Amino acid sequence: MESKEFGIPVRVYIEDTDAGGIVFYANYLKYFERARTELIRSLGYSLRSSLNNGLSYVVHSIELKYHMPALLDDEIQVSARLSKLGKTYMIFDQQAHRGSSLLVSAKVKIACVSYPGLKPRALDSELGSRLKQYLQE
Amino acid sequence: MESKEFGIPVRVYIEDTDAGGIVFYANYLKYFERARTELIRSLGYSLRSSLNNGLSYVVHSIELKYHMPALLDDEIQVSARLSKLGKTYMIFDQQAHRGSSLLVSAKVKIACVSYPGLKPRALDSELGSRLKQYLQE
Amino acid sequence: MESKEFGIPVRVYIEDTDAGGIVFYANYLKYFERARTELIRSLGYSLRSSLNNGLSYVVHSIELKYHMPALLDDEIQVSARLSKLGKTYMIFDQQAHRGSSLLVSAKVKIACVSYPGLKPRALDSELGSRLKQYLQE
Amino acid sequence: MESKEFGIPVRVYIEDTDAGGIVFYANYLKYFERARTELIRSLGYSLRSSLNNGLSYVVHSIELKYHMPALLDDEIQVSARLSKLGKTYMIFDQQAHRGSSLLVSAKVKIACVSYPGLKPRALDSELGSRLKQYLQE
Repeated sequence: MESKEFGIPVRVYIEDTDAGGIVFYANYLKYFERARTELIRSLGYSLRSSLNNGLSYVVHSIELKYHMPALLDDEIQVSARLSKLGKTYMIFDQQAHRGSSLLVSAKVKIACVSYPGLKPRALDSELGSRLKQYLQE
Repeated sequence: MESKEFGIPVRVYIEDTDAGGIVFYANYLKYFERARTELIRSLGYSLRSSLNNGLSYVVHSIELKYHMPALLDDEIQVSARLSKLGKTYMIFDQQAHRGSSLLVSAKVKIACVSYPGLKPRALDSELGSRLKQYLQE
Repeated sequence: MESKEFGIPVRVYIEDTDAGGIVFYANYLKYFERARTELIRSLGYSLRSSLNNGLSYVVHSIELKYHMPALLDDEIQVSARLSKLGKTYMIFDQQAHRGSSLLVSAKVKIACVSYPGLKPRALDSELGSRLKQYLQE
Repeated sequence: MESKEFGIPVRVYIEDTDAGGIVFYANYLKYFERARTELIRSLGYSLRSSLNNGLSYVVHSIELKYHMPALLDDEIQVSARLSKLGKTYMIFDQQAHRGSSLLVSAKVKIACVSYPGLKPRALDSELGSRLKQYLQE
């Protein structure tokens, strides 16, 4: 079961580009995080608030494929889809498009860990139930 | 056949960190690129110089695994090992360590493409022969 | 004579913060550039398009004052006001606010130069006339 | 009374550049911070360690002038000179050079504040005495 897709528009500014005249490839990780953050925010939850509960959500692993470059002044669409919800982790499939052209695709695994300590922990129960409901919408 | 490992020290500055008090995970891509760049530079070659020959070297895909976070003021070791040399691409295995602790590992595929046009092309012959020799050292 | 103020909202993401738990101070320069870019875009002009005319618009000097920090997840307002239009330069007064609290203020001088060569040049006449009209609105 | 000059070499990587083919102007703030951090470190002190004492060192204001751009692969020299030591602040004069060419100059005021609370406070006495001695060397 997969969630529906959540997307945000991202404008490319000079800060995002490199001397090759294109978006610096590491910056797509920023775009993808913005989309995940807004998806979670749209559910009325903030990942950071859980630091107070002794939990932290950290990037566990990422797979990235670069298909075409984005350019200065482009307005691109950046999406996040919750593709797997585990007891201690979330996996997001993410893409950046310019119009119908796929620019970059990624799979990002976010793990819930104790903070400090960084041992695997079950997702905050409120987050878990909101995500479960989101998957079923 | 794999190349020997090439490494550089990297100091963590405040610019590299995030509000979680650790190195922002996207920034390891910068560290890894610095190590690849210095490896290539140590062979007397600059990837960027080949733009003049109508070739460009672009990141094709990346796999990243995060094991432990680096902290402000840490001095870490960032390595690059040429693990595969294709006709049109290079694959690097890369790691970041603090002392003997593995922090982050990555596999980065760099493709040679025409510029502009971005079609796959054989590596510049001078680069190819230097890398082949490097693999055999 | 000063222009009216132009503003954009900016959301603070984890990418913008540092280990002090606040927005890394250099990142306000990115926010201010986004606001200037959108101001110019709202006039139907793109600074970058003029590279083709042998002109480039470069940052000549900046004065920054930091009053209060922005925090993760804040939505702040970033403004730009054209405070002086010279023959070869523009000066912008810029501010970042959270609600009614002033966070950062800046004065940014953008110079028009030949490209390449980087000698002072008169602003592109179309840009100059659009800015003059903007000042009078 | 001014301190002697402290300098570090900085290599320009692709991460530092923008689509104009030059170092993105905000990134000089990172270079300048690296130089200040290493100056303080050379005195056996770490600004961050004082967070434990309820003090924080924050950027109060910056003046920047851009003279010439740095380019990809450049090795530049970045310097910091303590030009004024106040009871609650430090002022640094900083420069970036490529060979004998001045690229960027800056004046950076760092204030000591309570943490949290952000009210002006006297510099940590150990830091103050080390800086006073440094000024006299």
